Amino acid sequence: MNDIVVSLRKKVKEHAPLIHNITNVVVTNFTANGLYAIGASPVMAYAKEEVADMASIAQALVLNIGTLTAEDVEAMFIAGQAANKNNVPIVLDPVGVGATSYRTETAKALLEKIDIQVVRGNAGEIANLIDENVEMKGVDSNVQINNLVDLAKKAAVKLKTVIVLTGKTDIVTDGVTYYQIQNGDELLTKVTGTGCLLSAVVASFITQSNNILEASAAAVCFYGSAAEVAASASLNKGPGHFQLHFLDYLYTITDEKIKELVKLEKSID
Amino acid sequence: MNDIVVSLRKKVKEHAPLIHNITNVVVTNFTANGLYAIGASPVMAYAKEEVADMASIAQALVLNIGTLTAEDVEAMFIAGQAANKNNVPIVLDPVGVGATSYRTETAKALLEKIDIQVVRGNAGEIANLIDENVEMKGVDSNVQINNLVDLAKKAAVKLKTVIVLTGKTDIVTDGVTYYQIQNGDELLTKVTGTGCLLSAVVASFITQSNNILEASAAAVCFYGSAAEVAASASLNKGPGHFQLHFLDYLYTITDEKIKELVKLEKSID
Amino acid sequence: MNDIVVSLRKKVKEHAPLIHNITNVVVTNFTANGLYAIGASPVMAYAKEEVADMASIAQALVLNIGTLTAEDVEAMFIAGQAANKNNVPIVLDPVGVGATSYRTETAKALLEKIDIQVVRGNAGEIANLIDENVEMKGVDSNVQINNLVDLAKKAAVKLKTVIVLTGKTDIVTDGVTYYQIQNGDELLTKVTGTGCLLSAVVASFITQSNNILEASAAAVCFYGSAAEVAASASLNKGPGHFQLHFLDYLYTITDEKIKELVKLEKSID
Repeated sequence: MNDIVVSLRKKVKEHAPLIHNITNVVVTNFTANGLYAIGASPVMAYAKEEVADMASIAQALVLNIGTLTAEDVEAMFIAGQAANKNNVPIVLDPVGVGATSYRTETAKALLEKIDIQVVRGNAGEIANLIDENVEMKGVDSNVQINNLVDLAKKAAVKLKTVIVLTGKTDIVTDGVTYYQIQNGDELLTKVTGTGCLLSAVVASFITQSNNILEASAAAVCFYGSAAEVAASASLNKGPGHFQLHFLDYLYTITDEKIKELVKLEKSID
Repeated sequence: MNDIVVSLRKKVKEHAPLIHNITNVVVTNFTANGLYAIGASPVMAYAKEEVADMASIAQALVLNIGTLTAEDVEAMFIAGQAANKNNVPIVLDPVGVGATSYRTETAKALLEKIDIQVVRGNAGEIANLIDENVEMKGVDSNVQINNLVDLAKKAAVKLKTVIVLTGKTDIVTDGVTYYQIQNGDELLTKVTGTGCLLSAVVASFITQSNNILEASAAAVCFYGSAAEVAASASLNKGPGHFQLHFLDYLYTITDEKIKELVKLEKSID
Repeated sequence: MNDIVVSLRKKVKEHAPLIHNITNVVVTNFTANGLYAIGASPVMAYAKEEVADMASIAQALVLNIGTLTAEDVEAMFIAGQAANKNNVPIVLDPVGVGATSYRTETAKALLEKIDIQVVRGNAGEIANLIDENVEMKGVDSNVQINNLVDLAKKAAVKLKTVIVLTGKTDIVTDGVTYYQIQNGDELLTKVTGTGCLLSAVVASFITQSNNILEASAAAVCFYGSAAEVAASASLNKGPGHFQLHFLDYLYTITDEKIKELVKLEKSID
């Protein structure tokens, strides 16, 4: 798998896939800079008058409901349909699903009416998408992981997508095969938009592979590895320095370092 | 007061209050990162379909009119009413009031129809909210400070809120008791959104206290202290490095450093 | 010319011109911070209810269609008309023209109905504005430069504006006189919004001169020089550090360094 991570990262740099993002206003700048750093070509376009055109020429589409408005939602449906028509893969980031019924209903409607290839969210978001409860507190760590794997697999089957469930351990699954990934650093939780950017990095990686499940797992490994090097380089100075080094290492991390850091376990039911 | 600053900062870290921001597009990312850095939980939500739900589950609501649109204004009223109904405290940041009549009228309407606990602005903004003039140029510094204290107290009485008037000296008052605070650094004026983030930090601090006036003053002291350490650490390299170190020190500044730096004077009429 | 670059930069710092930006959501924060760094006063305002007021009190207006919506476009026309009425110069940044017909038509309509002083874009965007093709691949470098100069001059004549065509060599022309500028660094292409910020810096510089062509060229030289120093200071660490140093050097670059670095050639047909 290490070779696949390195190879897909290289292909992204070489081919600079155009990633069309309809994303939230908090993370637009960080997402664009992160995509540039990995060598992809970000474009943000929101107007219903142009999203079909943009999604059609893109290599992947990212739908992120972090600060959705009725106009954005309308644009997401238009873009999603255009992407489906042109075989452009779609990654959905269901930010905050469960917090308000508007988010939950919007995310569910998108999943119902659009053919979405990958959903990337945390445990709470994934659980709410399929009306499950996720009980995390005070539970033994191994039990937790097993519960999360079950949740991710259930969601993958029910939603007919690859699920990237991120947390302390990241889980990537199509419902049958699943990867458990131990890369990343806690400082990622102190910088806004790191989950959102990961969704866009997953979108970039799946444009360079015929295997969406594997490419999604590779993106998560790559992303977490860059975070680890960045955390180390930022010398515990804080989230400001971490963010800076993270953008740098998304650009500069070496193949050797990636291969050294990737911590992934593959299982098949 | 030093102990209160340190204690409230600690409580914010421990309890991670959910701060719902309806803020301007310039500062969303910086605000979210700043709130994460102090240990709060930022959420941005703008759609009229969901702001009532979000404001109701938040511990505080921040309304910032920096890039207001008609849709945002509608959402602010809905969120404000939901916050009032659920006893969620509200901080208003009247960015640019006085620059256009749309901003002035919107801020006044919000203050009239919503029960707002704190208003954070500069002298010009506060003056325009209560139709006062503020003449600053060529005036002796002590006279100036007295004028600003009078302005802040007048606004607090008229608007029935705590006023946080920021400038070279920051003034925090409920109309009777007032604090003069000398923390901060001029580099704060070279980074966009530092005032807006302060409003969100004030919102975070007041969630951890029964005394809104005191908690607001504590937030200003904490914020200014972190800025001083950041300015020193950034070695006059410029606003880029300052911003970075500032985010770091909002996260890492020690209790000892805070106690050493707080420069606050309390007066009661 | 070196003296003009230094002199206009100094005037911007002294007079802090108010630059009204109607720009895209990806770059708002970076644009505001960049404008603060050079000493200008940024303001972002988008609502049709206030843009005429804001544009009228500004020293320059920047229209950037990077994430345009129907509401933004309406606001751009209102602001543009107010700016024209008050002799406030306008810089248009036609981001992504050619990618979708909505962008192309919007940019053309703005140029037709509003009196715009400067257009800043890359070769593809400028070409699409005047329905030209630009063929770059596999062409000898000198031929390329000549083609780009011709393109820029043609656009300047047809659109009756100063054209700032940016790329490896930047070209600034009014259709007769043209400047070729060799400042800048490739890392600018790895940070989002560097083109958009340049448009805003051009807007700032032209407020301090009666010669829009010359002031635009000076802005490009200044901007590229700061980028060169920043690239050098960031020690190849990556786009994160580069962005940081760039904001710093927009603020701190010395007159001597500017004079040393400016690489500009002026020609007249």
